[in-house]
Amino acid sequence: MAAPSNLQIELAVSTVVFALRPHPETGELTLWLPLVRRIREPFLGQWALPGGPLQPDQDLVSSARATLLDTTGLAPRHLEQLYAFGDVDRSPSSTRVVSIVYWALVRADEDTAAVEGENLEWFPADDIAEEAGVLAFDHGVILAYALDRLRAKVTYSPIAHAFLPERFPLAELRRVYEAILNRALDPSNFRRQILAQATVEDTGERMTGTAHRPPKLYRSTPHRTRYTLTIQETP
Amino acid sequence: MAAPSNLQIELAVSTVVFALRPHPETGELTLWLPLVRRIREPFLGQWALPGGPLQPDQDLVSSARATLLDTTGLAPRHLEQLYAFGDVDRSPSSTRVVSIVYWALVRADEDTAAVEGENLEWFPADDIAEEAGVLAFDHGVILAYALDRLRAKVTYSPIAHAFLPERFPLAELRRVYEAILNRALDPSNFRRQILAQATVEDTGERMTGTAHRPPKLYRSTPHRTRYTLTIQETP
Repeated sequence: MAAPSNLQIELAVSTVVFALRPHPETGELTLWLPLVRRIREPFLGQWALPGGPLQPDQDLVSSARATLLDTTGLAPRHLEQLYAFGDVDRSPSSTRVVSIVYWALVRADEDTAAVEGENLEWFPADDIAEEAGVLAFDHGVILAYALDRLRAKVTYSPIAHAFLPERFPLAELRRVYEAILNRALDPSNFRRQILAQATVEDTGERMTGTAHRPPKLYRSTPHRTRYTLTIQETP
Repeated sequence: MAAPSNLQIELAVSTVVFALRPHPETGELTLWLPLVRRIREPFLGQWALPGGPLQPDQDLVSSARATLLDTTGLAPRHLEQLYAFGDVDRSPSSTRVVSIVYWALVRADEDTAAVEGENLEWFPADDIAEEAGVLAFDHGVILAYALDRLRAKVTYSPIAHAFLPERFPLAELRRVYEAILNRALDPSNFRRQILAQATVEDTGERMTGTAHRPPKLYRSTPHRTRYTLTIQETP
């Protein structure tokens, strides 16, 4: 059998992981991502997306999952393929690398296991995307693409629910949207639109706590996976 | 430098090409795709998506474009990445193959260049997707995925315009939607929804021809790339 003609091409799997945490300056909930510091050339000392070469016995998603657990301690339930990046010159090394990129959305209660270390650090995603030259390879392009896709996708799918626990008050869902979209949303307009979509349903329960009238808890409606949200800025 | 750990993995680029042609039995406009007959094992004699190994000097999209021109004579303007398929056992050959799959939508006036030959044939897409074992490898799964994606995407983006020339009557756009979705749409409801989206605009021109009152011609509105269409079946 003839040798395959692309032995020179290495295949890697990387993941853009998003979690919601308060911004260190504004205190507002915002998108963060973990990055791994490169300990070898090329791009020695710069930050890169968690990832590694695809192993012969690993499916694509298994590879993404293994690297994530290994580098960040995270095992997020929401993990999906984003895009394959394969420009010929995207790595300055002698071996050409094609990266199949996944993205993960981390729920607050999944975020506790996160490892911090000398070569792993979390950053506010937009700050990193705006600062040229921080990221190795074309990972800045990949991050910008992931942010665009997430911000588009929340307007036609209930993907934002992936950041929330099983039951949540509607105000919490709005705060997730505000964090993703980086803008304030009108509470009553948001509430009206979300309830009209029927992508959430009333659980009949309320939050426990000290409030006089604790807010209702909702959950995602199974099989309602598509909808539309028209984003209007508050005046 | 250490050898990459995945020399055993071959990278291929394949494309699902959709064009609209009348169905041979019903005469209704429907989705067709070109397939290439395999002339070697594995799956000798079965049909496969046009594609081939990624060449070292080719970007992913260049590879898709080159294979398409080579096998089908087509150079469709609408070509975008669909998904990467990388299950460990998707090819029975000794070399593992990861396929990055593109999809192309072919306009009627681009469809003329299509080559037919002993090892290239066009088929109605749904007929092929429903018939198990016709396609080699996991190409049946890939085709089903592409059909699902296309049918979902027409409801939140103007991707259906890719099948039409620059100027078109609204009835023609409806026929494209009907062909993609495989169902009849109510003409006045369709017209109302499309005009409300502002994804098309009146060119001020009308079709030329023999009709007493020729229909108005519309064109896609630039920068309006997102919208919602609620599909209702006619009673």
